Amino acid sequence: MTPPRQLHLNAFLMSTGHHEASWRLPESNSHAGTDVAHFQRLAQTAERGKLDSIFFADSPVLHGNVAQRPYGGLEPTVLLAAIAAVTERIGLIATASTTYNEPYNLARRFASVDQISGGRAGWNVVTTAGDAAAKNFSLAGQPAHSQRYERAAEFLDVAKKLWNSWEDDAIVADKAAGVWADSSRVHPANHRGTHFQVEGALDVPRSAQGHPVIVQAGSSENGKDFAARYAEAVFTAHQTLADAQAFYSDLLQRTAAAGRDPDSIKILPGIVPVIGSTEEESLRLERELDELILPEHARNQLAGLLRVSPESLQLDAQLPDGLLSEDEIEGAKSRYTLIVNLARRERLTVRQLIGRLGGGRGHRTFSGTPEQVADAIQGWFQAGAADGFNIMPPVLPSGLETFVDQVVPILQDRGLFRREYTGQTLREHFGLAKPANSFERVPQPA
Amino acid sequence: MTPPRQLHLNAFLMSTGHHEASWRLPESNSHAGTDVAHFQRLAQTAERGKLDSIFFADSPVLHGNVAQRPYGGLEPTVLLAAIAAVTERIGLIATASTTYNEPYNLARRFASVDQISGGRAGWNVVTTAGDAAAKNFSLAGQPAHSQRYERAAEFLDVAKKLWNSWEDDAIVADKAAGVWADSSRVHPANHRGTHFQVEGALDVPRSAQGHPVIVQAGSSENGKDFAARYAEAVFTAHQTLADAQAFYSDLLQRTAAAGRDPDSIKILPGIVPVIGSTEEESLRLERELDELILPEHARNQLAGLLRVSPESLQLDAQLPDGLLSEDEIEGAKSRYTLIVNLARRERLTVRQLIGRLGGGRGHRTFSGTPEQVADAIQGWFQAGAADGFNIMPPVLPSGLETFVDQVVPILQDRGLFRREYTGQTLREHFGLAKPANSFERVPQPA
Ligand SMILES: Cc1cc2nc3c(=O)[nH]c(=O)nc-3n(C[C@H](O)[C@H](O)[C@H](O)COP(=O)(O)O)c2cc1C
Ligand SMILES: Cc1cc2nc3c(=O)[nH]c(=O)nc-3n(C[C@H](O)[C@H](O)[C@H](O)COP(=O)(O)O)c2cc1C
Repeated sequence: MTPPRQLHLNAFLMSTGHHEASWRLPESNSHAGTDVAHFQRLAQTAERGKLDSIFFADSPVLHGNVAQRPYGGLEPTVLLAAIAAVTERIGLIATASTTYNEPYNLARRFASVDQISGGRAGWNVVTTAGDAAAKNFSLAGQPAHSQRYERAAEFLDVAKKLWNSWEDDAIVADKAAGVWADSSRVHPANHRGTHFQVEGALDVPRSAQGHPVIVQAGSSENGKDFAARYAEAVFTAHQTLADAQAFYSDLLQRTAAAGRDPDSIKILPGIVPVIGSTEEESLRLERELDELILPEHARNQLAGLLRVSPESLQLDAQLPDGLLSEDEIEGAKSRYTLIVNLARRERLTVRQLIGRLGGGRGHRTFSGTPEQVADAIQGWFQAGAADGFNIMPPVLPSGLETFVDQVVPILQDRGLFRREYTGQTLREHFGLAKPANSFERVPQPA
Repeated sequence: MTPPRQLHLNAFLMSTGHHEASWRLPESNSHAGTDVAHFQRLAQTAERGKLDSIFFADSPVLHGNVAQRPYGGLEPTVLLAAIAAVTERIGLIATASTTYNEPYNLARRFASVDQISGGRAGWNVVTTAGDAAAKNFSLAGQPAHSQRYERAAEFLDVAKKLWNSWEDDAIVADKAAGVWADSSRVHPANHRGTHFQVEGALDVPRSAQGHPVIVQAGSSENGKDFAARYAEAVFTAHQTLADAQAFYSDLLQRTAAAGRDPDSIKILPGIVPVIGSTEEESLRLERELDELILPEHARNQLAGLLRVSPESLQLDAQLPDGLLSEDEIEGAKSRYTLIVNLARRERLTVRQLIGRLGGGRGHRTFSGTPEQVADAIQGWFQAGAADGFNIMPPVLPSGLETFVDQVVPILQDRGLFRREYTGQTLREHFGLAKPANSFERVPQPA
């Protein structure tokens, strides 16, 4: 009997948790966002649960109003390095922007995290929506959505050339002869493109997994095409099984159309598990958290997202007519559409929509017992909607501990999830092949 | 009796050590450059010696010929984060370029390392000499020396505004009222300059030491003026006491002329200590290392530095006439002059010059017993040439272990160096004040 297909689980970590109001709970650490020990413990908890990876979002901007909830924190590549030092196996994924970085800088930083962690690094490639970020980088406003994705594609081409600089066996270290590396096995990038000219070789030798796992998290048309070409794992947000299934098969088709094996991309929708020992308890926890949301704050935030004035949103009415279409949005297109569709489909009032978004910013919130959460995961997994999940605990650290201690064992008992790590690298956890170095291995004359 | 003025000691770390040929020793780790455990142990050794700090150089380029010695390694800000996780007190200084970074990115990354380490971070600000680096960043060649320093000055202005974004008490964390931060105490940078427009606030709250210690390491005229305006610690290279004294008093005068307290800048010349239990043993060690240098390799490297053809350098003759003057050098001006002056003053042959440079790339090599090394340090320190030293062990880890175990205790016995850390932050180790936040603290209405 072949064992059932295996789930992949990533823990998406975020200061006091994904619920907007989690910071207001008595147990929450008000300085969690800059507390490295908090994140190191979370990573160790996720590793105890044998999760594939942890993940940090990122945007080079202080977005949002700090009066209303914690914003800001630690730049995630340096945070991952500090976590690498206190973990052994778990994958380490950081977000970084292709719009506001240079490929040489970012390729070497991720390669360094990959070396430091023994091949456990992943890069969530984003194009960074919003004018506020642009204004931190000497621009008047964000480049157009399609331009951002064009630059992202060339950025990835350059990064892959750089990660290809050193062949695996380039370092010969012949002390007697005084030859450290075989220079015929170290290759300059020689990239001359539209956005970038990058001549040299990377200054970091190839890591145990070849190069960091490429993750992607935008679900617009441009985003899906980019994922089909480059991504090895995809984070995404869906409210319904049908949407998730449609996304899953769409992306697999695009991946095949791009000439890649559909098995070389792992799709992980987000889930915000609100876990109680009974269903009632989980619903009470969810309600208590929602009641801590300040409606004015949430309304302002929603208005910004929908590009309308706060006054046009009435808390106990549905969304007004005449909203923009996705085509007109230059920021985060797919998130916009998801939110508008959710409100229209379920005929939610603004107040109800705020509750739904407060929990997971458009991700699927699921309240229930550990058994019910495991069922929800297994259901989508086996219905062709997911290769695994992006676990977004509403409250941290408690929500991750509960997941690891109560949900993971059920998934293990069902044969769906590893009991021990079988690999060392993030690629091995995800079941992804190590990319070959593209240079032919010409045998050296003796 | 007032205790004598205290020395500051920094350990400059570099794969297998500063001697060019150190990698060829039987005990050297051929993969040291990418081995995080190697660097973590070195940092722990330096911390055992109560040193002020460790330091990593950096350039975003694979410079040099990898056939001839180890080049490349780990990007130093992520490396420092991994080291922060396994140390408690020692300062952590990384080099980063103002020419090939954006201020928002770098300010947040250093602020993050500063948070992760509890206020132990320092940034060695460099402008990055050389065309090879420029060609990794879509440029045909390096910007002119003066332009690089102009950009560096504005870069620092922006970084300081960003580090000034959050007042120390900005986070009020009033859970009951639902107010996380006092938004009147978080300030946008609002920088509109020649090279940069940066609008927003930093997304990292202020660290325990206010902001990372600013270190500088270029000694050209532009470099010294930059140091006088911005630097809190300066690494420098001198071969003679007279040169070091002249540099020291020049820089203190410039610092005063820039309106700063001369005590707010600490000057640390480099020293490469080759330590033996007898003077003969130390000289034998130095000779053994020098004999491992491949002269062809070193001649090519020297020719590149001097901008002449390798053939024009004859191993057993002095440097040819007609070399460029410092004015004509757009790369590392002060290093160029130091090397030419050293060769001319001591009438060195190319082979002898290569030996001197192989040990410390222009830094002062000192061979002797632990007692003699301590004397050399004390001598310059008390002759107005230094506030401390940049210790550059020729071989690592052994050279650092010997320094910590045999030289540090002598300096401690002489009352010149701390026996225990008295502070927590790098600023406290260096005796530097925490920079005030420039925004007035308007008392809030009750
Ligand atoms: C789980 C998840 C995490 C994300 N994290 C980030 C992030 O950290 N930074 C960012 O700029 N965008 C992030 N995004 C993507 C944005 O939400 C948005 O979709 C993207 O910036 C634009 O993509 P699109 O217009 O193709 O949808 C994330 C998306 C998902 C689903
Ligand atoms: C101890 C020491 C360390 C240095 N480290 C670096 C470095 O890591 N990266 C770099 O580009 N320059 C570094 N420099 C500076 C260069 O040697 C060179 O002086 C500088 O790039 C240009 O400065 P100048 O032209 O003002 O002398 C260092 C200098 C010293 C003394």
